[in-house]
Amino acid sequence: MQASIDLNSDLGEGFGPWAMGNDAALLDLVSSANIACGGHASDPDTMHATLALARARGVVVGAHPGYADPLGFGRRIIPMTPEAIGRMIAAQIGALQGVAALAGVPVRYVKLHGALANLAADDAAVAHAVVQAVAAMQGLAVLAISGTVLEEAARDAGLPVYSEIFADRAYLANGRLAPRARPDAVLHDADEAADRLLRFLETGLMPSVDGPPVRLRADSICVHGDSPDAVAMAQQIRAELTAQGVTIAPFLAG
Amino acid sequence: MQASIDLNSDLGEGFGPWAMGNDAALLDLVSSANIACGGHASDPDTMHATLALARARGVVVGAHPGYADPLGFGRRIIPMTPEAIGRMIAAQIGALQGVAALAGVPVRYVKLHGALANLAADDAAVAHAVVQAVAAMQGLAVLAISGTVLEEAARDAGLPVYSEIFADRAYLANGRLAPRARPDAVLHDADEAADRLLRFLETGLMPSVDGPPVRLRADSICVHGDSPDAVAMAQQIRAELTAQGVTIAPFLAG
Amino acid sequence: MQASIDLNSDLGEGFGPWAMGNDAALLDLVSSANIACGGHASDPDTMHATLALARARGVVVGAHPGYADPLGFGRRIIPMTPEAIGRMIAAQIGALQGVAALAGVPVRYVKLHGALANLAADDAAVAHAVVQAVAAMQGLAVLAISGTVLEEAARDAGLPVYSEIFADRAYLANGRLAPRARPDAVLHDADEAADRLLRFLETGLMPSVDGPPVRLRADSICVHGDSPDAVAMAQQIRAELTAQGVTIAPFLAG
Amino acid sequence: MQASIDLNSDLGEGFGPWAMGNDAALLDLVSSANIACGGHASDPDTMHATLALARARGVVVGAHPGYADPLGFGRRIIPMTPEAIGRMIAAQIGALQGVAALAGVPVRYVKLHGALANLAADDAAVAHAVVQAVAAMQGLAVLAISGTVLEEAARDAGLPVYSEIFADRAYLANGRLAPRARPDAVLHDADEAADRLLRFLETGLMPSVDGPPVRLRADSICVHGDSPDAVAMAQQIRAELTAQGVTIAPFLAG
Repeated sequence: MQASIDLNSDLGEGFGPWAMGNDAALLDLVSSANIACGGHASDPDTMHATLALARARGVVVGAHPGYADPLGFGRRIIPMTPEAIGRMIAAQIGALQGVAALAGVPVRYVKLHGALANLAADDAAVAHAVVQAVAAMQGLAVLAISGTVLEEAARDAGLPVYSEIFADRAYLANGRLAPRARPDAVLHDADEAADRLLRFLETGLMPSVDGPPVRLRADSICVHGDSPDAVAMAQQIRAELTAQGVTIAPFLAG
Repeated sequence: MQASIDLNSDLGEGFGPWAMGNDAALLDLVSSANIACGGHASDPDTMHATLALARARGVVVGAHPGYADPLGFGRRIIPMTPEAIGRMIAAQIGALQGVAALAGVPVRYVKLHGALANLAADDAAVAHAVVQAVAAMQGLAVLAISGTVLEEAARDAGLPVYSEIFADRAYLANGRLAPRARPDAVLHDADEAADRLLRFLETGLMPSVDGPPVRLRADSICVHGDSPDAVAMAQQIRAELTAQGVTIAPFLAG
Repeated sequence: MQASIDLNSDLGEGFGPWAMGNDAALLDLVSSANIACGGHASDPDTMHATLALARARGVVVGAHPGYADPLGFGRRIIPMTPEAIGRMIAAQIGALQGVAALAGVPVRYVKLHGALANLAADDAAVAHAVVQAVAAMQGLAVLAISGTVLEEAARDAGLPVYSEIFADRAYLANGRLAPRARPDAVLHDADEAADRLLRFLETGLMPSVDGPPVRLRADSICVHGDSPDAVAMAQQIRAELTAQGVTIAPFLAG
Repeated sequence: MQASIDLNSDLGEGFGPWAMGNDAALLDLVSSANIACGGHASDPDTMHATLALARARGVVVGAHPGYADPLGFGRRIIPMTPEAIGRMIAAQIGALQGVAALAGVPVRYVKLHGALANLAADDAAVAHAVVQAVAAMQGLAVLAISGTVLEEAARDAGLPVYSEIFADRAYLANGRLAPRARPDAVLHDADEAADRLLRFLETGLMPSVDGPPVRLRADSICVHGDSPDAVAMAQQIRAELTAQGVTIAPFLAG
């Protein structure tokens, strides 16, 4: 049984007067917070408020850059060269670092958002540009989707890399996420999600929807908080994992 | 005679497909470049291109944050608390630092832009918030308008502070810039501007339009490049200063 | 007793993925909907969805332009000339009209939002520029805060003008809204708000917090929906008014 | 010999403080002006200034909507449903109509910009959504690239449709523009461009770079003004056409 794992969630995704999700509830559950950087969401005040909440709870902070497309919430591929993507995320990570310096919190890692995360999971040139940007900024780890091209590129570049699995997403036998178009792509039942994770922590094997279980590496479990149901699922997962003796702890030591 | 002085200019103020001023010409003249950070102007690609040009010429780089108001080019006061101003410039300075890390250039100082520079020149709470943000980010100096509240606040906080005068702006006897509403607020003649600067470097005294000359401190002269005439004036100033034996050198050593 | 009055509310104030308020609940209560135009809030998809909801319920639609400042939600004065304000609201009203044509709903009136509404309430040059823009677009009425310079300017220009009072805001004896800085500026109790409105409809007199009641004209009552409490207050006001025999009907006939 | 033809150009493509191209020079040459609507470029003040220039010269005005992506200048495909594209251009056309009402100029037609124009040239669902939006707004014609799916869709819908060819772009034998990746895709010589157009006006046949000449219909010739060379080419084309007795006149009568 894997004795310890991190819980991470995407946070600070409001924009000016508009809120998104329940950050306060999530921050009581997770050990690492991926904080939006003003690209797909957020602004300096929202960043600062989220950083202050994370700091108060001792949650480790990472940067969560995405396409600079708030109307699309970073879920659309914006045609850009890999080099332009590198510059875009460097600016976003830097922006969060600037506000984090003011809030007295270090930014420890980078996790990509939305369509950019999906692209860098498969596209070696984009993954390379992302890794180059993160490496240039120094002192940052990468939190990558388990089994992706980005994870490999970061490892090859000598960056500290950590791998995440998703609490509520089904997997294919090749280790990738089941596409959202499939009816069974998303788990809605918290019991089922918690059970699946416990079995995974015992065996290292994740059930797949199209074949045999797949062996994945996981330093962290991604949970969501964009609906009351999502928060409830995250709460139950944390409760069941700790009830079974799994320690929830950040993949990066304080 | 002051033997050496810096020349600085605001650069990298394009936005996506739109250019502003003649950066390449200016970068051959100045020793320090204030580079826009994506607030009043610029974007990650423009930042990167400008940083690369500065690096190629050995020009020292500073961050040039302003109100996040591209349509107003940072020349309008956007009502914000001093704390929100601090967060905004922290995000902008950080964004430039991120891209600069990728471009392999250090960001060495901060100079405020436009309406924000004018506000921080007089408003102690805003000046304090700016100084706090710059101090939190570590390793950055402040380039302030000579004689302002911001200069004083930065000095009080123990930050390295450098003072600038303007090549083409008239002064009042109290040491402040003559307001643009005055017909004599802006110098248009390059000879006159160069002569005035040479006399200032000899005496430390700047002529005023409403009284006796005023004693100012100057580590740098700000020149503009937003029109062909402005570039020509900057070229002539540099030529006359060097002809009189004044060395043009950055206020921050390479 | 005034036998009939309109209820209006600000709607369609989401932005891309971010929601604001409970439009569906409000649209069951109001007879006129002030729909954001992409300035302080909204985007073409949000406009279209809101217009379709209003059309399905037979609610009359007006344009709700404001400063083009989503991060400030139109609540900050952005320094602009009156002429530039006129152009800005013309573009916003036109944008809503374009989407409304596609949705098959006419835009019938204009009500200003936030800081711009407050400015046009007092500033004759701004009020004149607003009236000029609305008049140029033809076929539009103005919904103005009762007793303001804008109301007067619209009337002088021969535009159809309707006046609104606020369900949850206290008044001064001079007929203006009590400033939000006052502790008694906002009514939080739905019973009290409904009683006050009923008495107003009987007498035409609105209690003031700093003197005798003030005589106001009201074609519409503005209710809010940005919190569950606000929706509940709007529901109660509608219920009590109709229980007392007041008809809720749009100020502009279908 | 075709006795008369329109010249059109994309204008008003500045953004806040940033200029683009030489609108004043172009407006002395063209008979129709495609004016940016705040999507890929422009803002209410820029729209108004461009509309006023067009009005002063009697140039017919069309709306020039594009992807709402100023950093990409509308040259990137932003993933959107056809319905969302229809709403987006309805909002943009409406915005220009609003400002045009204030400027006292009618908006007479719609011409798509950049990546959206290319998409609608080939994609029937997008072309249909565009046509639906234009039809809903009433009284507008379509200016389409000759031989495209958009031209056909507009004609099928009963909208007034006019066809344009490009002064400086090479054609394929199938009637489409030669892709920019080809070295011969763009004509740089003004003499050659003018000669080609004159021969086309005589014969109705356009030379192709990959086969025999292709028969095209043209009510208008698109000229560019984004560089001094482009303006010079436009001037020469106008001069040679008028020297050969061709009348330059708008496709829509004043």
